[in-house]
Amino acid sequence: MKNPFYNRDIITIKEFNRSELEYLFSVADKIEKLDYERKKELAKGRILGLLFFEPSTRTRLSFEAAMLSIGGNVLGFAHPSMSSVEKGENLADTVKTVESYVDAIVLRHPMEGANRFAAEIASKPVINAGSGTEEHPTQAMLDLYTIMKVKGRINGLNIAIVGDLKYGRTVYSLIYALSNYSPRIFLVSPPQLKVRSEALFNISDKIKFSEHEDLKEIIKNLDVIYVTRIQRERFPDPHEYERVKGSYVIDVDLLKSGKEDCMVMHPLPRVGEIKPEVDKMPNAKYFLQIYYGKVIRGALLASIFNPDPYDLL
Amino acid sequence: MKNPFYNRDIITIKEFNRSELEYLFSVADKIEKLDYERKKELAKGRILGLLFFEPSTRTRLSFEAAMLSIGGNVLGFAHPSMSSVEKGENLADTVKTVESYVDAIVLRHPMEGANRFAAEIASKPVINAGSGTEEHPTQAMLDLYTIMKVKGRINGLNIAIVGDLKYGRTVYSLIYALSNYSPRIFLVSPPQLKVRSEALFNISDKIKFSEHEDLKEIIKNLDVIYVTRIQRERFPDPHEYERVKGSYVIDVDLLKSGKEDCMVMHPLPRVGEIKPEVDKMPNAKYFLQIYYGKVIRGALLASIFNPDPYDLL
Amino acid sequence: MKNPFYNRDIITIKEFNRSELEYLFSVADKIEKLDYERKKELAKGRILGLLFFEPSTRTRLSFEAAMLSIGGNVLGFAHPSMSSVEKGENLADTVKTVESYVDAIVLRHPMEGANRFAAEIASKPVINAGSGTEEHPTQAMLDLYTIMKVKGRINGLNIAIVGDLKYGRTVYSLIYALSNYSPRIFLVSPPQLKVRSEALFNISDKIKFSEHEDLKEIIKNLDVIYVTRIQRERFPDPHEYERVKGSYVIDVDLLKSGKEDCMVMHPLPRVGEIKPEVDKMPNAKYFLQIYYGKVIRGALLASIFNPDPYDLL
Repeated sequence: MKNPFYNRDIITIKEFNRSELEYLFSVADKIEKLDYERKKELAKGRILGLLFFEPSTRTRLSFEAAMLSIGGNVLGFAHPSMSSVEKGENLADTVKTVESYVDAIVLRHPMEGANRFAAEIASKPVINAGSGTEEHPTQAMLDLYTIMKVKGRINGLNIAIVGDLKYGRTVYSLIYALSNYSPRIFLVSPPQLKVRSEALFNISDKIKFSEHEDLKEIIKNLDVIYVTRIQRERFPDPHEYERVKGSYVIDVDLLKSGKEDCMVMHPLPRVGEIKPEVDKMPNAKYFLQIYYGKVIRGALLASIFNPDPYDLL
Repeated sequence: MKNPFYNRDIITIKEFNRSELEYLFSVADKIEKLDYERKKELAKGRILGLLFFEPSTRTRLSFEAAMLSIGGNVLGFAHPSMSSVEKGENLADTVKTVESYVDAIVLRHPMEGANRFAAEIASKPVINAGSGTEEHPTQAMLDLYTIMKVKGRINGLNIAIVGDLKYGRTVYSLIYALSNYSPRIFLVSPPQLKVRSEALFNISDKIKFSEHEDLKEIIKNLDVIYVTRIQRERFPDPHEYERVKGSYVIDVDLLKSGKEDCMVMHPLPRVGEIKPEVDKMPNAKYFLQIYYGKVIRGALLASIFNPDPYDLL
Repeated sequence: MKNPFYNRDIITIKEFNRSELEYLFSVADKIEKLDYERKKELAKGRILGLLFFEPSTRTRLSFEAAMLSIGGNVLGFAHPSMSSVEKGENLADTVKTVESYVDAIVLRHPMEGANRFAAEIASKPVINAGSGTEEHPTQAMLDLYTIMKVKGRINGLNIAIVGDLKYGRTVYSLIYALSNYSPRIFLVSPPQLKVRSEALFNISDKIKFSEHEDLKEIIKNLDVIYVTRIQRERFPDPHEYERVKGSYVIDVDLLKSGKEDCMVMHPLPRVGEIKPEVDKMPNAKYFLQIYYGKVIRGALLASIFNPDPYDLL
């Protein structure tokens, strides 16, 4: 298969079909086994620009680690206070400036559409690392890769997505990515945080799903529980926030009432949605997601930079 | 010619004559054509210290990209809040500390004279990346290099410098750099932002110049329009600011009334001085400046680090 | 001797005995003489994670320079505002996340015990770069190494530790490190900043020490004066602060009343404790400490990463 990622913008997961995703997974499998002497040929002399207009530990450091691990380097800023944006510069000029310095740009921005806009302006590939409440496509890539590595398949799995389905940008990218396969999806949320209807509309002819309020009712069926953070600022009433939040906390008791090999995922950071006692259970796979995040981003960068990364693997 | 930059402080553009500048341009031309395997020998194992006591996208990332592109590495801080300056440490101690870690220091500081002071203290070369309203010598180097690459010469060109000529530090470095050649300079500004008289005094016997308030009057003569940002905080009256600022905006109509090959430059960031519609005109060269900024800074660093960079080119 | 640092956490200097420290000093001596081609084999393809929950110029950049100098790379954050801690993430999850990206973690944190806690959680080595008012073990390593390089020995030296002995975390690590040898220690401080009694208890059977208020009284005996910063916030009364601070300022006159080769040390940053006039005296060794800080940290990292660094030296 021809490399579908070469020199390409990564704005939405919707633009990638199953065979393209599996090309990426296959590159990731190969890279993971290489020693550093081989890996460093994949991005030698390349520079990745990281433009983070919102703070992030995980995504920024994950891209940084991925790029360093394949022999490249990074530059950029971790916070808008460190940029000329403070002098009133607009996003377009920042992007056109940074693209003179780098081989690809990773952009996180609070505004919807910022990544699409940046990709139209830039002649170098732009990778969406989260914009507004929309998408976070590389998160979905690593989520699917992690499920594949743990379960060996996605088809036929019962996957619950739990928590804030309305505002969580990882949720949308995940649902779209899963719609390339045929799992059964359980959307579990309080009524005020139900998934936005346009997402359901987009996937309704491709994939089986159902909506739920109570996780306990369906726990016995689940192969995967994907938990997301419920943010206080979504609720006008703090008591309501506490009540809702409490009803979706994953603990040892809950997991023991489900399938033995039900895997628990979370895009992290978590703030109480999964009790620390769960960390030691073999079901806990959220730190494995972190690890595969670095692997899959390294594979993505290698595929963006090289016409045929297999030549180097 | 012997390398005039080896192990040297770069504090003011006034210390560099025409043959020295052209040595640098020649090194830049050569480096640009090398592949990474050759380039990386120029700064292998070297570390550049970036001390930014004022925020900056362009200059900091440009030095970072330049250093990485010739095989070196960088460290430092992008904001004083990330340094021991918060604990009350003075500049001298910060400089003496960082010079133990690096091969050269790039310093941006809000105080006039900070770079000269740092260079006197440090045993490693110090490069001025802007201090107060004084100078920004590497900006002048890249400005001249860009004119050379586009026009093939500087002698005989009609060059307008437009905007805030009083406080813009790039303006002074540019005027001094141009005085090594024989262009004709048009200084275009509102009365309250005229160039400081000591600058005129320094160049008056070397170079032809005239002062103007109206850009439209002289547009037909110009080969180069160098636009600078007019800052709101210079004006006690906001209405006066808006009036003045509006009178120097570069747009398509204005450029169409001038020479077809008149090039438009700007040190960036811009905040409305050049309309985005101009970006697509072949006259727009401000993003080319960004690119050559990386190239010329790479050449400068290579020349500071290596007794004879030509041995490696 | 077997490498005692391989894959080991560096939490407290108390865990390292004299022969272990001297193993490190010996590795440092060797690395310092290597050229970059050899040095870079020590950390090739390795990444060091820097988690600084408190700002720092010296320690952070020192680790960064050390890691780059032996061929590795770094990532992390210089300030908690750049991390997911702002989203409410706890230290445990930050550590578990970053360890997926790196080969070792350097942690500075305002809370006592944070480093011990991180080391228990992490499967990768954790290096304490300062936690609360406790310890700063790599500072003690570089302090002893600097004394060794200047004096050739530690046994038999008269070493004064001056200033804030109660809250200064470097003080405790230094005292514990020195207790592996047999110097005579003079603890010089105002009454309200005397060393905490548990430290005296720990060392009282190992090392000779005495407590003093007046530095002038003992100056004639001293081979080493180790000065620390007295912080304003320790004093309820600002006048008292000024009086106490003034009584421990090191100047040329004071040093001329002591031994000719008495060396002056300071962990830096200083805020007036040593007058700048002292910098030019041969007694001033605090910038040499900075230099050896980079060297010793490079040796430490090389020893943590490689089962036997001597194979590569």
